[in-house]
Amino acid sequence: MRGTVLYGPRDIRSEERPEPKIIQPTDAIISIAATCVCGSDLWPYRGINPFTEPTPMGHEYCGVVEDVGAAVKSIKRGQFVIGSFATSDNTCAVCQHGYQSSCQQREFMNSAQATMLRVPLADGTLVPTPGHPSAGLIPSLLATSDVLGTGWFAADAANVKPGSTVVVVGDGAVGLLGVLSAKHMGAERIIAMSRHEARQKLALEFGATDIVTERGDEGIAHIKELTKGEGADSVLECVGTQESMSQSIQSARPGGFVSCVGVPHGVELNGEQLFYTHVHLHGGPAPVRRYLPMLIDLVLNGEINPGKVFDLTLPLARVAEGYRAMDERRAIKALLVP
Amino acid sequence: MRGTVLYGPRDIRSEERPEPKIIQPTDAIISIAATCVCGSDLWPYRGINPFTEPTPMGHEYCGVVEDVGAAVKSIKRGQFVIGSFATSDNTCAVCQHGYQSSCQQREFMNSAQATMLRVPLADGTLVPTPGHPSAGLIPSLLATSDVLGTGWFAADAANVKPGSTVVVVGDGAVGLLGVLSAKHMGAERIIAMSRHEARQKLALEFGATDIVTERGDEGIAHIKELTKGEGADSVLECVGTQESMSQSIQSARPGGFVSCVGVPHGVELNGEQLFYTHVHLHGGPAPVRRYLPMLIDLVLNGEINPGKVFDLTLPLARVAEGYRAMDERRAIKALLVP
Repeated sequence: MRGTVLYGPRDIRSEERPEPKIIQPTDAIISIAATCVCGSDLWPYRGINPFTEPTPMGHEYCGVVEDVGAAVKSIKRGQFVIGSFATSDNTCAVCQHGYQSSCQQREFMNSAQATMLRVPLADGTLVPTPGHPSAGLIPSLLATSDVLGTGWFAADAANVKPGSTVVVVGDGAVGLLGVLSAKHMGAERIIAMSRHEARQKLALEFGATDIVTERGDEGIAHIKELTKGEGADSVLECVGTQESMSQSIQSARPGGFVSCVGVPHGVELNGEQLFYTHVHLHGGPAPVRRYLPMLIDLVLNGEINPGKVFDLTLPLARVAEGYRAMDERRAIKALLVP
Repeated sequence: MRGTVLYGPRDIRSEERPEPKIIQPTDAIISIAATCVCGSDLWPYRGINPFTEPTPMGHEYCGVVEDVGAAVKSIKRGQFVIGSFATSDNTCAVCQHGYQSSCQQREFMNSAQATMLRVPLADGTLVPTPGHPSAGLIPSLLATSDVLGTGWFAADAANVKPGSTVVVVGDGAVGLLGVLSAKHMGAERIIAMSRHEARQKLALEFGATDIVTERGDEGIAHIKELTKGEGADSVLECVGTQESMSQSIQSARPGGFVSCVGVPHGVELNGEQLFYTHVHLHGGPAPVRRYLPMLIDLVLNGEINPGKVFDLTLPLARVAEGYRAMDERRAIKALLVP
């Protein structure tokens, strides 16, 4: 089958790989309907996350179940399914608390930028749709697998409520879907931080009420100006750098909520500074599985259209173009069709 | 009048000082009924918080209003009042959100280890009792001024609910009153970390169900053992060191809540490590004013007796003995009577 392997910084290849097989009796094998390139794939692509051997890539997926292990009970051959980037048994104490991405049996998915995929813990990880969705819904369903689920968690973890004032730091697909999520949760004011025209446009379409182009101290000053000097109720940190984290914390009002869903790279928080801001801090790898059934329903009912973040569609074999376009910020997110 | 001034590390003196006067029209002057030494006073006392000039000490107080400025409306001469260590107007946007200790007009109190005290923003800072309390209630009312309010915030910020499993890190007065607060909020299991017999005893009296004497990795392992390997729902960090903070974060279950009320000294949090723990983090200088009316009621109704943390009572003139006893951990908390 065709798969995608990262060999070194900016050396990504589409190549023939062995077909996945059932290894554990709780596994399923699915044929991929659509997959995509994630902002987090760019960290190793850019050589920022070091790795020592060729690495199969991809962790966002939806498709049709081809085979299941002997212990799989609820997932059936022929179903159309979507799963999270983190596997989960959905039964352990951690899952019961809603943190499936810290499941006691969690594995982080890879190898999804391929035609076929093995999904461990199929019953707890995969969510089937009722019947097979139309082709037009596939991008939005694929988005629930990670970027929408992560944007939704960002808004939820930042306590977005009807009437909230919200700042979204980061204009990647996750940040943009954080805007969509905050809008759906009833936020009154949504300030998107972006200096990229196509992304600003999509942010406004998803419900942003204001765009702030400044960063750092100027960005914080502009946020304060827009919020009567108070800062925002909720700030969604969707990047993961020291700068974006500092900016996020300082953009919240005292007692406000800051969520962190961008994997932190080189971020150090000074305890004393954090203490005096009085913010609430919460984040981590998004427990997408918690939200998947509800998000799939919203997509199937036509209430949201998160698939709009895909502004580039490529055949799987041309995956390298997708990485390049995202690396150079020419594309927000690249959809790959096997 | 008699006041208390810190001249240098371990050089604390009770001496004659000028009587406070009304400076702002929103000020009140109170005669102190009782004051005390705070765990946080030990940071400068030990020379860990540097300071350049003689510093008047004390920020916990209750007493009788002697005089009020022209703009003071609700607070009257002759009332018995209690106030927080942080002044607040109790009307600004930050106060309205319940973060009075970050009030836009906040000042941190000092000079309370004295016979008289000037309290800025009297209307927003002070809470009067109905009538004058009996002498036996004074220690518990004094405790609401900081240590009880802070312990209560620690439990509240750590999301303690009926049935919660709670860990309290720190066996100072704040930690012990964190135990009392968690108990009052309905926690099912309260694990106090302490290796000091008198404090263990008081923790158990306040509602602790388990005592853990180990620290660091061994302490974390013991907590995990007591919580089916999961970690606690809520962890109250009541110390403020790197060790206690790390221990607190690692003692919480994924998705659990960690509150931080000990002023951090030299604490750095690694963003990536924090991210993967999935904990909620919240803290800061406790907004005691938010809780004061309710806590005063609980004391006056005899439902709680936080004054038990005072295991040493001294005349104000012998304040230095109080600092020494707390520094050497011979006393949990020293009450000072003018």
